[in-house]
Amino acid sequence: MDVKPEVNGGVKEEKHNRPPPVIDGPTNPMVTPLLNDLYQFTMAYAYWKAGKHKERAVFDLYFRKNPFGGEYTVFAGLEECIRFIANFKLSKEEIAFVRESLSPTCEDAFFDYLEGIDCSDVEVYAIAEGSVVFPKIPLMRVEGPVAVVQLLETPYVNLINYASLVTTNAARHRFVAGKSKLLLEFGLRRAQGPDGGIGASRYCYMGGFDATSNCAAGKIFGIPLRGTHSHAFVSSFMGTDEIIDKSLKSHDGSQVCEDFVGASQTWLSKIKRLSILKGVFGETNQSELAAFISYALAFPDNFLALVDTYDVMKSGVPNFCAVALALNDLGYKARGIRLDSGDLAYLSCETRKFFQTIETEFVIPGFGKTGITASNDLNEETLDALNKQAKLFIYFEFLTSGHEVDAFGIGTYLVTCYAQAALGCVFKLVEINNQPRIKLSEDVSKVSIPCKKRSFRLYGKEGYALLDIMSGENEPPPKVGERILCRHPFNESKRAYVVPQRVEELLKCYWPGTTDKKREELPTLEQNRERVGKQLEQMRPDHMRRLNPTPYKVSVTAKLYDFIHFLWLNEAPVGELQ
Amino acid sequence: MDVKPEVNGGVKEEKHNRPPPVIDGPTNPMVTPLLNDLYQFTMAYAYWKAGKHKERAVFDLYFRKNPFGGEYTVFAGLEECIRFIANFKLSKEEIAFVRESLSPTCEDAFFDYLEGIDCSDVEVYAIAEGSVVFPKIPLMRVEGPVAVVQLLETPYVNLINYASLVTTNAARHRFVAGKSKLLLEFGLRRAQGPDGGIGASRYCYMGGFDATSNCAAGKIFGIPLRGTHSHAFVSSFMGTDEIIDKSLKSHDGSQVCEDFVGASQTWLSKIKRLSILKGVFGETNQSELAAFISYALAFPDNFLALVDTYDVMKSGVPNFCAVALALNDLGYKARGIRLDSGDLAYLSCETRKFFQTIETEFVIPGFGKTGITASNDLNEETLDALNKQAKLFIYFEFLTSGHEVDAFGIGTYLVTCYAQAALGCVFKLVEINNQPRIKLSEDVSKVSIPCKKRSFRLYGKEGYALLDIMSGENEPPPKVGERILCRHPFNESKRAYVVPQRVEELLKCYWPGTTDKKREELPTLEQNRERVGKQLEQMRPDHMRRLNPTPYKVSVTAKLYDFIHFLWLNEAPVGELQ
Repeated sequence: MDVKPEVNGGVKEEKHNRPPPVIDGPTNPMVTPLLNDLYQFTMAYAYWKAGKHKERAVFDLYFRKNPFGGEYTVFAGLEECIRFIANFKLSKEEIAFVRESLSPTCEDAFFDYLEGIDCSDVEVYAIAEGSVVFPKIPLMRVEGPVAVVQLLETPYVNLINYASLVTTNAARHRFVAGKSKLLLEFGLRRAQGPDGGIGASRYCYMGGFDATSNCAAGKIFGIPLRGTHSHAFVSSFMGTDEIIDKSLKSHDGSQVCEDFVGASQTWLSKIKRLSILKGVFGETNQSELAAFISYALAFPDNFLALVDTYDVMKSGVPNFCAVALALNDLGYKARGIRLDSGDLAYLSCETRKFFQTIETEFVIPGFGKTGITASNDLNEETLDALNKQAKLFIYFEFLTSGHEVDAFGIGTYLVTCYAQAALGCVFKLVEINNQPRIKLSEDVSKVSIPCKKRSFRLYGKEGYALLDIMSGENEPPPKVGERILCRHPFNESKRAYVVPQRVEELLKCYWPGTTDKKREELPTLEQNRERVGKQLEQMRPDHMRRLNPTPYKVSVTAKLYDFIHFLWLNEAPVGELQ
Repeated sequence: MDVKPEVNGGVKEEKHNRPPPVIDGPTNPMVTPLLNDLYQFTMAYAYWKAGKHKERAVFDLYFRKNPFGGEYTVFAGLEECIRFIANFKLSKEEIAFVRESLSPTCEDAFFDYLEGIDCSDVEVYAIAEGSVVFPKIPLMRVEGPVAVVQLLETPYVNLINYASLVTTNAARHRFVAGKSKLLLEFGLRRAQGPDGGIGASRYCYMGGFDATSNCAAGKIFGIPLRGTHSHAFVSSFMGTDEIIDKSLKSHDGSQVCEDFVGASQTWLSKIKRLSILKGVFGETNQSELAAFISYALAFPDNFLALVDTYDVMKSGVPNFCAVALALNDLGYKARGIRLDSGDLAYLSCETRKFFQTIETEFVIPGFGKTGITASNDLNEETLDALNKQAKLFIYFEFLTSGHEVDAFGIGTYLVTCYAQAALGCVFKLVEINNQPRIKLSEDVSKVSIPCKKRSFRLYGKEGYALLDIMSGENEPPPKVGERILCRHPFNESKRAYVVPQRVEELLKCYWPGTTDKKREELPTLEQNRERVGKQLEQMRPDHMRRLNPTPYKVSVTAKLYDFIHFLWLNEAPVGELQ
């Protein structure tokens, strides 16, 4: 693999005039035009056969319901969509495969047509990546020859769905954890496949995590990496006799401790003799002590120990403190411990007390604040419960204390979006040949909103977003200070007048096709991450809360409302009662 | 991308003597040694620094709990693990990145060591891919230099977890659907990222699905493809006037229908005039009719129409029948319809009645049996409910009829494993330098089973599997007809004597390292798929049922039991009560 770290969102050269900019291909080389449902190719053939393939069509990409029982979603995946469209080209080999997969009666000329297509005459308008978004509002509006745009549906929906879902999940975790906690994404091993893992690391960082354990994601996206050791490392040691090279240079290089093993053991005896700790622990596990000493010898600047291989309070924490104090004598500051099982709140509080005892008894300023990381099957709910210091139910035990965790390592529930493993983005035809189109359904929430549209976010006096409104493309946009009637798209009785203090147009041009429109630059991952944070701050808190959040309103203009219902009546078949 | 269709499980040349076989790399080129948690590299350094890196270690890969509330799991992902190990090599660029990510104090010689490592002295024993497997029993046993095997943990667990989870999910869907139904995987757009989609298609096929919509998976793995058209295709048409080329040659080429549009319209009028259908429908939607005719003109041999864009019974089904009858006149047999919304059981029954009326009234033998595919947010539960003809709750309506669906297109719930989005495979050190190792935990289910082990499946008189048993490597294997004491690994009181009629050794050698062991060949996807089917048939039905399945017993020999508990006592710290 030769995936280069992204620079400026994958854009190598930036030119706003023709020729089109050179943009790297998708991060995952498996994202090709064949990453597609077969029916996109059968439809392309049927459009071609009917002579309709060049008809100009407009498709909206949107979702119908916010995930995780919440009232907001964070939009992500746009950069990959633009990388895809910028490099869209079917290879001869891919076309040969499509030919095999379609009917033998398909005409040769169609495959010549397929060979010629690219996305140079496709236009993509989208909401900025990292924005807070809502149901029904188009995240992307894709316009171009119907057969070509049809071939974008599956890859686009695939690239947006999981990216937005996991970014939203990460943002929700950040929201409940609060700003002060360190959030680490540790999900690679449980992710849904290799790039489920790589994607998760990227988008969790965008959603507000601080670092990942995933080296590939660190290399490709420049995300900070974190990680120390596992239980296997601890149990791989038999005892301190194994350690051959026992010497450690002090932090400032001025002295060498020739027997760091002995130094750690001496500290362990001192801790053990503290009368205040009598009864807390007896003999600690010697393989564990050997593992901690070895890890400290390898990384004296970055000593963080996993303390639950044998017993947290009877072995892991005392062993850690012994090594940390030996390091302290050499001018190193230990990073802390990691808890990976048991009652995290209780164990973190007990550990904190132990650290504070060490600080007091041995007069080691700051030792009481040594870091505590927790990492056992955490999710939004357990984080919330821990942080509310509420009654907490972990492993069938109730407790009522708070917790002393500084950093959370979160894996499975975060990256697989366990609470809701899919977002339902769809890609619907809304106009063809300048004719608005609608898709009906007995389920009103599945009726599509026709017309090539614009969308606006209206802000109120306090700076919060009030609602989003969609209008037909040629309607005059809402103006600051003007009274606007905002209607629910399908519910006649739901409507409101709004006087916006600020109006933000949501859809921007990310791929201008053959038009002269300026192309929005693709921000870096870091910029997208900042955007997520700022966008969430602009939302009224009642939309954001975990329990019973207020739904954010999504509306259409009066004119668009009337048109939707005119078209609906026009297309719905009329029954014949006898 | 240049991913070649797999031949014989990706094995290009097959030689059992040195040099090692040439095996293709992982299907996804993003699967490299950097697809790893950082802590595998920090540990590798700490092992190296302690001079332990070449110590021979044995790790077990296993899971602790079956997914989806069931009592079985299907093992998948092994081929990718072998492809990974066969090509394991860190590039200079990757090593440079690891160096950047570790501490600046790390010694240069370590990075020279990293450059030299491969997996030629690693041994991998595994259960055959596509086998039914159970908690605690090692799916893979990986032995080799501790620092190298440590670097396999994250990629291996990543490659096995989702593969096994989604194969199990597919097998469960097949189980409830029954053998006669066609199962189509339509999940690409909702999958967790691009290769979440590609992996899902591959492993759903392995688990018993018949085809996929995913072209990339079709090309890479040779899975049959299915797909026709979407709502967008239907709504892209305005009316039949659009259709320019109206001619269609008959199936046998003997005649040409010059006006297939007119022929379809004539049939629509005839259907409408049937007194038995009076009141069922009036004017059908003309854009839909135009779309169906166009699709039939493009694929007369493969006409399958999505009938719910406007109204299934008032428009979609009559329009379909009109086009199908016009095709029938030319010797073509229409494939059928697809339902993608509403009450699938009810609509399928109404459609079947409609088809049967056409068969009877126009004397078209077989028309009543025209195919009905359903594809709206289906999952194991809705399939089960449909197939049991039980009271079914879809879209807030109760109904009590059966259904007439022949084929199911399943997406979101299948590929994202919505009911349980992760399997918890772990990779635990069980022996190092011939010393058995244990990982303790306050949660007994998290205590690891020490020792390099063998595992056996014991079969009873009726041919069903009775239980799995683990033994120490050097114990004599269980023998047919001999009474064996099988003990629960942690629960003293749970034990049973078993006299097996057949004994199957579970772990086979897939990567012999430097030993002379014969390497098991990697079966093709098709062979793995067959294995899944056969394995599930060998399970006693009460282990397989959806509701309250009987747990399958997993045990250890008496000798291993005693050793586990000796080691446990030995490693657990002893408290000091005062």
